[in-house]
Amino acid sequence: MKAEARMARQEFKFVGRSVHRVDGIEKVTGKAKFTGDLKIPGMLYGRILRSSYPHAGISSIDSSRAEALPGVAAVLTAADIGELDPYYNGRPVIAIKKVRYVGEPVAAVAAEDQESAEEALSLINVQYEELPAAVGLDAALAKGAPLIHENLKDNICGHEHVEKGNIEQGFAESDEIFEETFTFPMVYHYAMEPHSVIAEFNDEGIAVWSSAQHPFQVRGDIAKLFGLHPTKVRMVIPFLGGGFGSKSYTKFEPLVVALARKARRPVRICNSVTESMLTVRRHGARVRLKTGVKSDGTLMAREAEIHLDTGGYADNGPAVAIRAATRVLGPYRIPHIKTDAYAVYTNSGSAGSFRAIGAPQTIFACESQMDMIAAKLGIDPADLRLKNFLKKGEELRPKLRGMDANLASSLKKLVSVSEWKRRSKKKGAAMGLGCGATNAGATPISVAMVRLQPDGTLTVFAGSTEMGQGVRTVLSQIIADELSLPLEAIQIGGADTKVTPYDASTGSSRSTTLMGTAVLRAARDLKNQLLKIGAEAFRAKPGQISLADGAMICGEMRLTFKEAIRQRFGGSGGELIGNGDVGPEITGTLPVFWEIGMGSAELDVDEDTGEVTIKRYVSVADVGKAIHPEGCVGQEEGAAMMGIGHTLFEQMVYEPGGELINSNLVDYRVPGFKDVPKEFETVLVENEDGPGPHGARGMGEGGLVSVAPAITNALARGYGIRIKDLPLTPERVWRALKEKKK
Amino acid sequence: MKAEARMARQEFKFVGRSVHRVDGIEKVTGKAKFTGDLKIPGMLYGRILRSSYPHAGISSIDSSRAEALPGVAAVLTAADIGELDPYYNGRPVIAIKKVRYVGEPVAAVAAEDQESAEEALSLINVQYEELPAAVGLDAALAKGAPLIHENLKDNICGHEHVEKGNIEQGFAESDEIFEETFTFPMVYHYAMEPHSVIAEFNDEGIAVWSSAQHPFQVRGDIAKLFGLHPTKVRMVIPFLGGGFGSKSYTKFEPLVVALARKARRPVRICNSVTESMLTVRRHGARVRLKTGVKSDGTLMAREAEIHLDTGGYADNGPAVAIRAATRVLGPYRIPHIKTDAYAVYTNSGSAGSFRAIGAPQTIFACESQMDMIAAKLGIDPADLRLKNFLKKGEELRPKLRGMDANLASSLKKLVSVSEWKRRSKKKGAAMGLGCGATNAGATPISVAMVRLQPDGTLTVFAGSTEMGQGVRTVLSQIIADELSLPLEAIQIGGADTKVTPYDASTGSSRSTTLMGTAVLRAARDLKNQLLKIGAEAFRAKPGQISLADGAMICGEMRLTFKEAIRQRFGGSGGELIGNGDVGPEITGTLPVFWEIGMGSAELDVDEDTGEVTIKRYVSVADVGKAIHPEGCVGQEEGAAMMGIGHTLFEQMVYEPGGELINSNLVDYRVPGFKDVPKEFETVLVENEDGPGPHGARGMGEGGLVSVAPAITNALARGYGIRIKDLPLTPERVWRALKEKKK
Repeated sequence: MKAEARMARQEFKFVGRSVHRVDGIEKVTGKAKFTGDLKIPGMLYGRILRSSYPHAGISSIDSSRAEALPGVAAVLTAADIGELDPYYNGRPVIAIKKVRYVGEPVAAVAAEDQESAEEALSLINVQYEELPAAVGLDAALAKGAPLIHENLKDNICGHEHVEKGNIEQGFAESDEIFEETFTFPMVYHYAMEPHSVIAEFNDEGIAVWSSAQHPFQVRGDIAKLFGLHPTKVRMVIPFLGGGFGSKSYTKFEPLVVALARKARRPVRICNSVTESMLTVRRHGARVRLKTGVKSDGTLMAREAEIHLDTGGYADNGPAVAIRAATRVLGPYRIPHIKTDAYAVYTNSGSAGSFRAIGAPQTIFACESQMDMIAAKLGIDPADLRLKNFLKKGEELRPKLRGMDANLASSLKKLVSVSEWKRRSKKKGAAMGLGCGATNAGATPISVAMVRLQPDGTLTVFAGSTEMGQGVRTVLSQIIADELSLPLEAIQIGGADTKVTPYDASTGSSRSTTLMGTAVLRAARDLKNQLLKIGAEAFRAKPGQISLADGAMICGEMRLTFKEAIRQRFGGSGGELIGNGDVGPEITGTLPVFWEIGMGSAELDVDEDTGEVTIKRYVSVADVGKAIHPEGCVGQEEGAAMMGIGHTLFEQMVYEPGGELINSNLVDYRVPGFKDVPKEFETVLVENEDGPGPHGARGMGEGGLVSVAPAITNALARGYGIRIKDLPLTPERVWRALKEKKK
Repeated sequence: MKAEARMARQEFKFVGRSVHRVDGIEKVTGKAKFTGDLKIPGMLYGRILRSSYPHAGISSIDSSRAEALPGVAAVLTAADIGELDPYYNGRPVIAIKKVRYVGEPVAAVAAEDQESAEEALSLINVQYEELPAAVGLDAALAKGAPLIHENLKDNICGHEHVEKGNIEQGFAESDEIFEETFTFPMVYHYAMEPHSVIAEFNDEGIAVWSSAQHPFQVRGDIAKLFGLHPTKVRMVIPFLGGGFGSKSYTKFEPLVVALARKARRPVRICNSVTESMLTVRRHGARVRLKTGVKSDGTLMAREAEIHLDTGGYADNGPAVAIRAATRVLGPYRIPHIKTDAYAVYTNSGSAGSFRAIGAPQTIFACESQMDMIAAKLGIDPADLRLKNFLKKGEELRPKLRGMDANLASSLKKLVSVSEWKRRSKKKGAAMGLGCGATNAGATPISVAMVRLQPDGTLTVFAGSTEMGQGVRTVLSQIIADELSLPLEAIQIGGADTKVTPYDASTGSSRSTTLMGTAVLRAARDLKNQLLKIGAEAFRAKPGQISLADGAMICGEMRLTFKEAIRQRFGGSGGELIGNGDVGPEITGTLPVFWEIGMGSAELDVDEDTGEVTIKRYVSVADVGKAIHPEGCVGQEEGAAMMGIGHTLFEQMVYEPGGELINSNLVDYRVPGFKDVPKEFETVLVENEDGPGPHGARGMGEGGLVSVAPAITNALARGYGIRIKDLPLTPERVWRALKEKKK
């Protein structure tokens, strides 16, 4: 198998090589268009009036003065969508009767220019009746807490329970029991491009240009909301300036559609960063973790209670809870399990998808505790993990596909590249590690189409969103090798739901594996059609024909693809269409793949200030097969930096009154270039055992989850402080050091 | 075979039945959008400044005053397209240095409204240097005639020569030789919708909404002209208000694109009727026909010289000449042939495609002469034709596929339904007949796609243009029966070249046969995919599964298509795509089919005024298989009425100075309801021997060509006058009657 794979690898001209990105020139020359760059003729500019209360009834809205302002085309309020069922993805199109967080859209204006729209907002008079608010988990979970959704009996938005074995028995059979509570802050994705949407509503239907990672799901929501057949809703996705989950599912597209419907002209709304931070963020979390072990380090039982701060509306909070309840288990063999994860409504902006949903919060807890166990039992942390890792094929819990990766090979690679055995034992070394494995949420539904044009060029119709991750390049590489076409002959665009076939989403690290398989199958379908034409032309068998540089070769004979189309159709014109799709058959059961990331950190702490400096960070990603190695390394490094952000710096601060007070780059600290670890290494493990093309598996999220525990474990090992609350602000570290010295 | 076909027919639920048109409600409620109904946001209104000289050099154009007019966004002249190679389809984007007909576009204005655009035209100062003009065939063919294209040696734009046997020998072996010259007027299609185009030019490429029958050919022309890859040019074709060939090939789309490029905004130009008459028309013609026969009526030799008035630019004049040179032969076995057809440049608006190109002119000559031969030899005209008809499989001339229809069956049907034998022999009866068979120019390249949506509905992507002929209905019927889907579950739109696969054109009666086959194959491809899913679900063989009402049935088990998609993808979403294409394999050689139409007319002539009244008209169309019988009858009746138009009323009149003087409905007489024959019958022959779906062959043009000879032959038989020049204006008929009485 391996020899075979290696042989096959030699045949690749593009796969496995870090070719120039197919969208590189467009991007570096500034030609690449993002939604906010587009101007649809006749387009109006929209702005949103947002609630200044965290929880209040709306008694009235008077927009007459705004409507009278010159340049204002329309003002939208809940009254304008009265005939619709206005809920989607746990949110209303626009606030209905009450608001549930500071920043909730209450009205929206479309005007000839930004300034008029802005001015009109100030002319809208909203009368509120303030209600008691519940800001933060404690307030929302307290007895007698105000009900954020008054039709529910409490503020629980979603609950996931996982159980296996007998938890009581597990603890009874354990030699040691560990129980701790960890907290993780609310953080924001901080993609370079805030959310942007343009909508047009006319007799033909609805057209929406949006920074959306899930165009087909947004299409479905809009179609349902406005009572149209999905094929009458056209979603066009230009380039995206970073997603990281912030642009998953439907955000405020329906509001812009409703505004365009009222204005009878296209409308564009581009969020400010502050507005985007109020639109979606990562769940803050509290994780109580109780683990029983044998004295030889064998894990026996784990109980966890996880509370996630979902905010005013559900978004995909329940899905985050579902993942968290499993991801808290780590990639370990634990016979007795009982975990509960709760998504909790609070009076703040909604939380939703964010790179590795539910994982950083829970794996921080899990991997911190692993080190506490190792320390207590006097076992090397790497050895403790190796002892408990799931073996390939072994089940984490029922109803999940068994582990499909060789975890030990990744950890051994980390141990060797980081020189763990030597460096972590040096006196004064502050070195720690963490291991992450997540059951990726990738939905195995992708359909793709490749169309060979009469001039021999190929147009790819794949609904994946290019958001910086390089998906257009990776898909092009896969197709180019399958069809022996130069990359230049391949045209690939973004999703246009009128044109591109169905794709579940761009998210969950799924595109290379799933859309990659769909385009590979589409290319094979096309290849078979070409070979049939070639066989007829050469009077040969398809097996005697090889492909090279956009042509079929058979002995001395050669037929270019262009000639093949002419041969098929006997004149100029025509085209050959190859289709491919992928469904659950790719693996039979879910997850489609396990995503594996491990990392080690070495630190320096300024004991006077508490400032943490990362001297060295090694990240190991099991990618199965790296289609574009530099792209994988870039993804992994980016993920690690994002992990450094939530570990050391980032947290969204809501004051008790419900206002987010640090929604800008001055007050919300993201990692900068000076925070890049001095030594920063990424190692790709390529066991070619993933379900994707040529053995690839999803990556790009795994690098994120090991960072926090690797750093807190390094602090514990080097400085003797165990911090269970993130981020590791200098103050928090300094206080912990001071506490220890007492 | 026939029994089998009949059995198969019983299975059809839609094919062969005159179902409601799928676009019927949209049309009768006025919701159907035509290009002129569309308003693209930000759209400007364009108008064209046209030459007032038939032939002149352009010494200068001063558009500064027009540009300064408030509301004017751009003025286009040849100077703006200097960097392009401005010729396409034998025409320039806009007049370059000289004009070749009155009405040629010299400049164009885009403005905020029609009135400003109109006013701006009057402010453009064009200096001409008049040149001697050649208006009409005689002037253009005269010795020393002005050269319309100065780089040529004469005014011949195209020449087709057909030869078979030995023409001298043929005449030598003949008992009788007949030689006559016939003329046919320039006529206009008079579609209800004049040409309309909207163009948008931006960084993404070019988008054009157009009343175009050949979207992919227009796309190719525009891409070439503006130096873009064809996939960057998007052609969208809304409903068309009648084509009849007037909207074949590229008309003034490039001009509107160039204007939008200059204005940097979308521009719409809708022609007036007068402007459309100057844009395209049918070739006026002069046909000299010499035929040798044996005294028993056996045709021995035919020589023809055909001159076609093409106008200032080629358009598809050469293609018309190619067809005319063959179509003048009729559907007869003639051993010795020599024909020459010339497309001739003249200083008038260009001629191009028009329902049955090159046929009405030549078949009028051929079928008139057949009756003259019959009269001279004392043979019944029907018998003379039956004697000389090509038999099925017999070749008309080399390099053409043999006759694929049973001509005798159609004529016998005509003879019986019209009661020819009895009624034509009645004293004073003015009854005549004509037979047309044309080698259809249909290019066998069509690609189609059907996409089954997750809700079980089907979206059809077929590039055929719905121009009133009912193609969307016919394609839907074919698909509905193949997939056992209700018609309501099928969505079918027009061409959008960004979405719909390649289709050669909508023209040459090709869509039912060729696109019909492509969609049938696409539906079959999809059906096979469904059956595979069904076989797995039912644990059965595909052969054990039947389809009914959007579901698969196997014994007691049932799986709807919607469920099948869910079964395939294991969740909501996904889609199944079926592709189908058709190429020359459909028949091996061309024509793809012969189009057969025959007709008989019975007249009344008011001998005082010369006015001709058609008392009864019977039309016979061999359609192979009528997918939608009422649609076929409607096509045939429409064609016959159009034939009545050019036979009795229509002619575009150019005065010697080169101006078209009757470009409106008052001066240009088209048939009205009162001209509909009192008895008007259409008979469909269904031998199920066409190459299209279920034995269909193209129709809709054949009904046109027999009308003129049927009427002139009736005049000859009933009134003893043989008129060889059309139209049969009262004056012309009256003069002929008067001449005869002398």
